[in-house]
Amino acid sequence: MKIEKNVLIMSLFPNEITQLFDQTFNTFKSYEQENPEKFIESVSDNIDAIAVMGGTKVSSELIKKIPNLKIIANYGVGYDAVDVDQATLSNVKVTNTPDVLNDEVADTAVALTLCVYKNISSANNFLLEKKWLKSEFPLSKKFSGTKFGILGMGRIGKTIAKRIEAFNCEICYHSRNEKDVKYKFFSKLEELAEYVDTLCVITPGGEETKHLVNSNILQKLGKNGFLINIARGSVIDQQALIQALQNNIICGAGLDVFENEPNVPDNLMKLDNVILTPHIGSATVETRYDMGKLVYDNVVKMLTTNSTISPVN
Amino acid sequence: MKIEKNVLIMSLFPNEITQLFDQTFNTFKSYEQENPEKFIESVSDNIDAIAVMGGTKVSSELIKKIPNLKIIANYGVGYDAVDVDQATLSNVKVTNTPDVLNDEVADTAVALTLCVYKNISSANNFLLEKKWLKSEFPLSKKFSGTKFGILGMGRIGKTIAKRIEAFNCEICYHSRNEKDVKYKFFSKLEELAEYVDTLCVITPGGEETKHLVNSNILQKLGKNGFLINIARGSVIDQQALIQALQNNIICGAGLDVFENEPNVPDNLMKLDNVILTPHIGSATVETRYDMGKLVYDNVVKMLTTNSTISPVN
Repeated sequence: MKIEKNVLIMSLFPNEITQLFDQTFNTFKSYEQENPEKFIESVSDNIDAIAVMGGTKVSSELIKKIPNLKIIANYGVGYDAVDVDQATLSNVKVTNTPDVLNDEVADTAVALTLCVYKNISSANNFLLEKKWLKSEFPLSKKFSGTKFGILGMGRIGKTIAKRIEAFNCEICYHSRNEKDVKYKFFSKLEELAEYVDTLCVITPGGEETKHLVNSNILQKLGKNGFLINIARGSVIDQQALIQALQNNIICGAGLDVFENEPNVPDNLMKLDNVILTPHIGSATVETRYDMGKLVYDNVVKMLTTNSTISPVN
Repeated sequence: MKIEKNVLIMSLFPNEITQLFDQTFNTFKSYEQENPEKFIESVSDNIDAIAVMGGTKVSSELIKKIPNLKIIANYGVGYDAVDVDQATLSNVKVTNTPDVLNDEVADTAVALTLCVYKNISSANNFLLEKKWLKSEFPLSKKFSGTKFGILGMGRIGKTIAKRIEAFNCEICYHSRNEKDVKYKFFSKLEELAEYVDTLCVITPGGEETKHLVNSNILQKLGKNGFLINIARGSVIDQQALIQALQNNIICGAGLDVFENEPNVPDNLMKLDNVILTPHIGSATVETRYDMGKLVYDNVVKMLTTNSTISPVN
């Protein structure tokens, strides 16, 4: 099927997805250009759709420059890099890729949690450095049966909760509104932080949630508490977190996201009570294909039927 | 409570446990001695009980040398370092510490599984080496929804199964006899290996299970398959495993146990499709205390009431 429409691809998608776009549409790949901005200006009059990944900004200015734009199809659940208000004003649909990554991000949350409780990465290095020949690796902390708090009880939050329940943990959560779930609701984040052993952040990014986890919340989480972040770096006051980790205000952290990715502060990397991963939340072949396919399907549906599968505005 | 009996402590237990023994019994600590063997000989006539951890051998010769020995209280589920046949012949009870470590070892199994699927340790190193500034970490493989095979459906096997079910995996198992569980039973290990994506080994060690996982089984597990071992190194033909990993006969392995601990072959450590940990299966403060307490409780019960809590013979 060839559709005579023009799609601006702003990021490097998985190969199979780029091929799908190439086979179906006329494609314009700004990410391949030395000067993407100049390139976009040169083709902007003809563009019908944008396909873009989380890290690439789609600003108000850019949206205004593309007169026939109908859809910004965002790869990922978080769409904080897209100016949705401007898109709405310009009558442009924004879509994201919910659900297809719930399992993957939840798996990453569990992996980081178990890794930080059990010091898996340090244990691995201990063995590789042949220290086991001389001594036993220090005992770590038991995870099963602890109290697990989730900040943000959306689709991914529920998927995490399902997994964590199997570890005999008590699940609690905080979100703006109480949800129809069996888990204990805390209307105040600081009360949740005080109650739980682990606080797992899976709330959307953006201005509304910026630094929701600040030094006060970390203080409440306390010296036996662990922080897991698989949402957005912006939700946590990163400087406050580093200080809390340095001074044993909290016990440890598992972080997949950071305030200014891909930059990670040296003094965070130096700590031994953390496990840090480079935003791999949804980064498997299978899940990235499913996400890309949903981006593609949203573009196809919009440009052929003027509707979408997973709109956010 | 002071009990006028003599306990030979052969390994370094958690502090609280050693204190319990010291407060209750006359204790003799061979692990503190320069020549443990000579020390044991010098006190053997008086010893009523042995408290010992998995790594320390309790041989037939040793058992025969201690005429009044009533119990060998082993710390850990596996008691393959104790000559149980000789103990039985000598009318000595052997106990282990089942159940109290089920959760912990199961957590370790899940941690290794998620780590090897998601390359968590490599991802952590990628970030620490600042490679993220130049490129994205390679995509890994999705775990949720895969087929998970368990070799050994005992107490820990069931505890692992409960956790893995929450990841929407199909659970299958092989053991000597079919168990009263809802999971699919394979009477042949090679058929299980062929069917599943992950093979998780949690069968007892010892001669009966030696090299149960050999090159044929690894071949059946196949190039997309993962092997997890949290049981005993002896269950896997380690040389065959190294070859299988080197030649992509299987995809990857998460190993907490090895054939000749604490020695780990250099050519296993060099591989990048493995996560290796230094036998940390049950190694948390909480679980090790519970295990030590059960060793102590078995010794107290045996020396006061001539019965035990968790006998193996």
